Amino acid sequence: MRNRAAVLLTGFEAFGDSDINPTADIVDLLDGAEVLGRRVIGLELPVSVGRMPGLLLRAVDAYVPDLVLSLGLANGRAMLALERVAVNVLDFPLSDNDGAQPVDEPVIPGAPSAYFATMPIKSVLMAWAKGGHPGYVSNTAGTYLCNATFFHSLHLAAERGHRAGLVHVPYLARQVAALTRPGSSGGRMTHLPAEGLPSMGLDIMISAVRTAIEVSLSTQVDAVVGAGAVS
Amino acid sequence: MRNRAAVLLTGFEAFGDSDINPTADIVDLLDGAEVLGRRVIGLELPVSVGRMPGLLLRAVDAYVPDLVLSLGLANGRAMLALERVAVNVLDFPLSDNDGAQPVDEPVIPGAPSAYFATMPIKSVLMAWAKGGHPGYVSNTAGTYLCNATFFHSLHLAAERGHRAGLVHVPYLARQVAALTRPGSSGGRMTHLPAEGLPSMGLDIMISAVRTAIEVSLSTQVDAVVGAGAVS
Amino acid sequence: MRNRAAVLLTGFEAFGDSDINPTADIVDLLDGAEVLGRRVIGLELPVSVGRMPGLLLRAVDAYVPDLVLSLGLANGRAMLALERVAVNVLDFPLSDNDGAQPVDEPVIPGAPSAYFATMPIKSVLMAWAKGGHPGYVSNTAGTYLCNATFFHSLHLAAERGHRAGLVHVPYLARQVAALTRPGSSGGRMTHLPAEGLPSMGLDIMISAVRTAIEVSLSTQVDAVVGAGAVS
Amino acid sequence: MRNRAAVLLTGFEAFGDSDINPTADIVDLLDGAEVLGRRVIGLELPVSVGRMPGLLLRAVDAYVPDLVLSLGLANGRAMLALERVAVNVLDFPLSDNDGAQPVDEPVIPGAPSAYFATMPIKSVLMAWAKGGHPGYVSNTAGTYLCNATFFHSLHLAAERGHRAGLVHVPYLARQVAALTRPGSSGGRMTHLPAEGLPSMGLDIMISAVRTAIEVSLSTQVDAVVGAGAVS
Repeated sequence: MRNRAAVLLTGFEAFGDSDINPTADIVDLLDGAEVLGRRVIGLELPVSVGRMPGLLLRAVDAYVPDLVLSLGLANGRAMLALERVAVNVLDFPLSDNDGAQPVDEPVIPGAPSAYFATMPIKSVLMAWAKGGHPGYVSNTAGTYLCNATFFHSLHLAAERGHRAGLVHVPYLARQVAALTRPGSSGGRMTHLPAEGLPSMGLDIMISAVRTAIEVSLSTQVDAVVGAGAVS
Repeated sequence: MRNRAAVLLTGFEAFGDSDINPTADIVDLLDGAEVLGRRVIGLELPVSVGRMPGLLLRAVDAYVPDLVLSLGLANGRAMLALERVAVNVLDFPLSDNDGAQPVDEPVIPGAPSAYFATMPIKSVLMAWAKGGHPGYVSNTAGTYLCNATFFHSLHLAAERGHRAGLVHVPYLARQVAALTRPGSSGGRMTHLPAEGLPSMGLDIMISAVRTAIEVSLSTQVDAVVGAGAVS
Repeated sequence: MRNRAAVLLTGFEAFGDSDINPTADIVDLLDGAEVLGRRVIGLELPVSVGRMPGLLLRAVDAYVPDLVLSLGLANGRAMLALERVAVNVLDFPLSDNDGAQPVDEPVIPGAPSAYFATMPIKSVLMAWAKGGHPGYVSNTAGTYLCNATFFHSLHLAAERGHRAGLVHVPYLARQVAALTRPGSSGGRMTHLPAEGLPSMGLDIMISAVRTAIEVSLSTQVDAVVGAGAVS
Repeated sequence: MRNRAAVLLTGFEAFGDSDINPTADIVDLLDGAEVLGRRVIGLELPVSVGRMPGLLLRAVDAYVPDLVLSLGLANGRAMLALERVAVNVLDFPLSDNDGAQPVDEPVIPGAPSAYFATMPIKSVLMAWAKGGHPGYVSNTAGTYLCNATFFHSLHLAAERGHRAGLVHVPYLARQVAALTRPGSSGGRMTHLPAEGLPSMGLDIMISAVRTAIEVSLSTQVDAVVGAGAVS
């Protein structure tokens, strides 16, 4: 891996039914941290399909990162998800924060149908399991902003050479507490799963993101065949 | 659409924890049916990553179908899934029926990372909703045999010009009854969801597959942008 | 079992987010049927905590049934639930159809805290498993109308001597199709489970209810210790 | 509330598919703590239907607690559950640690069919929501050891006058990491929910238990009508 000095860590502002987004907190708290000799640059992106790509590009141009690790919030998931693939589709289940809601449009016209993560997702998964972090390899990052950011990051990576990945995190405990508070509309959610809505502590998320960065910077990847296969 | 005479409908033999596969029943029952002037050719494929591709190719060569609709069983899903995308990955969570279990290998070396369904999935979804069939667009067909068959079918489609799609169906009611029978290992499943294991009647599956074929044969598709967008 | 001539089968009108209730259809379709020499009396109850008890009592007085089998709709459950216990609590997660929404009140002041089903639920479960009907024993019937009806039926049973049970059924397929229809609010449900919303065919429900009646009429129950234990 | 000096906090040793039980950790860590002037007595109970009742009785005799708060592990639940009701049934889905597996037996022959929690569960729920702890009122504590302990505690309470409750906690994050570790049998769980297996941090559990104790000791309860109704 070339000698670069930075890790770009992206998160998102709040959207949808919650005014909290744990990925913004993680990015804030890790901004300026040093991991294996690289400085972590935390970047909170807007939930805007119009403004996100320019901000991401500007940061990649400015910091020339070794690794672009993007974080997204996945409502209702219970474990940390290492996303395997970004698809060239925008099909938004809800509007973004600028009111845009594209249906079946490409993220980047003319780009490939999909890119695979170039960070070593299986090695990160192993390290997470050893460290007590519940995670899995997910085969869909959805078709909303998280997937679009991941796709842009991998499209840039094809040319700039950085590694890129996307980790989806569950709700925070206090988000679920607010969403399901008795008397709130959430407290009466008709289709709330019988087991309740899953969440995860911020401390576990941060520790898992640190581990993902360390493993991504220190693992050799010779070939990317669908799953960040390690030679 | 060119004047062709056949629809190739593929299903699978049983695998994993059940000795029933509803897709084999559907393929059997619809074999020889006529839909909008085309004859349905039912083909039950082996759950074998080694033997499946040759059998699929032979059938496409023999029948030159307008449409290749593949069916797969998705354990635990509750609704009919119209798959949006096939990815170029084999990463088997369990062995196939020949004992093969590839990890992070390509379905077809050198082929694109992914193909999008070329049947009009959104139009089928609308028709299903009108007809009372519970369905949704899924963004992952997994990385097992179903995705591999779908990928092969779309790879052939790029050259042969047929439309191709994959529908994942839930368990049949009698499968769930057998899997969760008191006294069976399933009856003691530690992580059975609190709501139980979802299933669907064969009659609804067959009606939904017929609808999918009709809509796929009669809907104009001018551009495929990620989701079978209809002009 | 004494020589009585009738089975009282109760269902409910529609409520909440759907204008269909499969239990009303089942009760309609089985009304007048003969099972093991008894006539099935179908009774559609209002979703009204004020009016339900009087109507139930009047029917029990009129028909002197051997068996009172009540049916309820359990949003989001995937399998047929044989309820083990009725609790003396009204704690409504949503208003009933008359606008009443009691919180932490008794169903019947002064009555026991709970009653156990007096139909042989384990024997019915066995018969369902053999017949291919997915079912389980549930330990909570909730605290809404279904539980209240079940509680009233068992309170009457303590004096009148009939057997009583409650079966919760999933949504019908067409209900889920309507609730999740693209463009409807349901089509954008934020917390829809990843696997989709489970449903079941009316034919399976009807066959399961018939089986439950047959087994309940023909099985000896000597002691009721929590689970309709069969001697 | 009478002037008593202790809170009895019970948890369990590990059982089933995991060699960790978070309730044992909580009980250990809070043993000896002081909450609103009472000393917390932590008691780790064996997962043994034969030995548990005697140990519980001995502790109640020894410490004459104001409050007996029992904790149990609920595999697969995502939120903290305040149990409303204990039922007089033993129907074990798996053997206890002594190999006993009663089916449809009473917890205490001749005792009532059920007892309602005598701690103010709705007030605790409100305090949890304010404090960011995801929780809900559950209407079933199952029919395994947790329910049996809860039932014994409430049976004793009817005579001794202490308040009693049961809180079910989710898996710990490291338990889920171990259960779903790639290569373990868990890593291949056929029926793992699509969203993964939920967990919760020990810090949130401990804070929630402390809150439950504080609210239970400081809230007036005039009548117990099914749900710890607060006057």
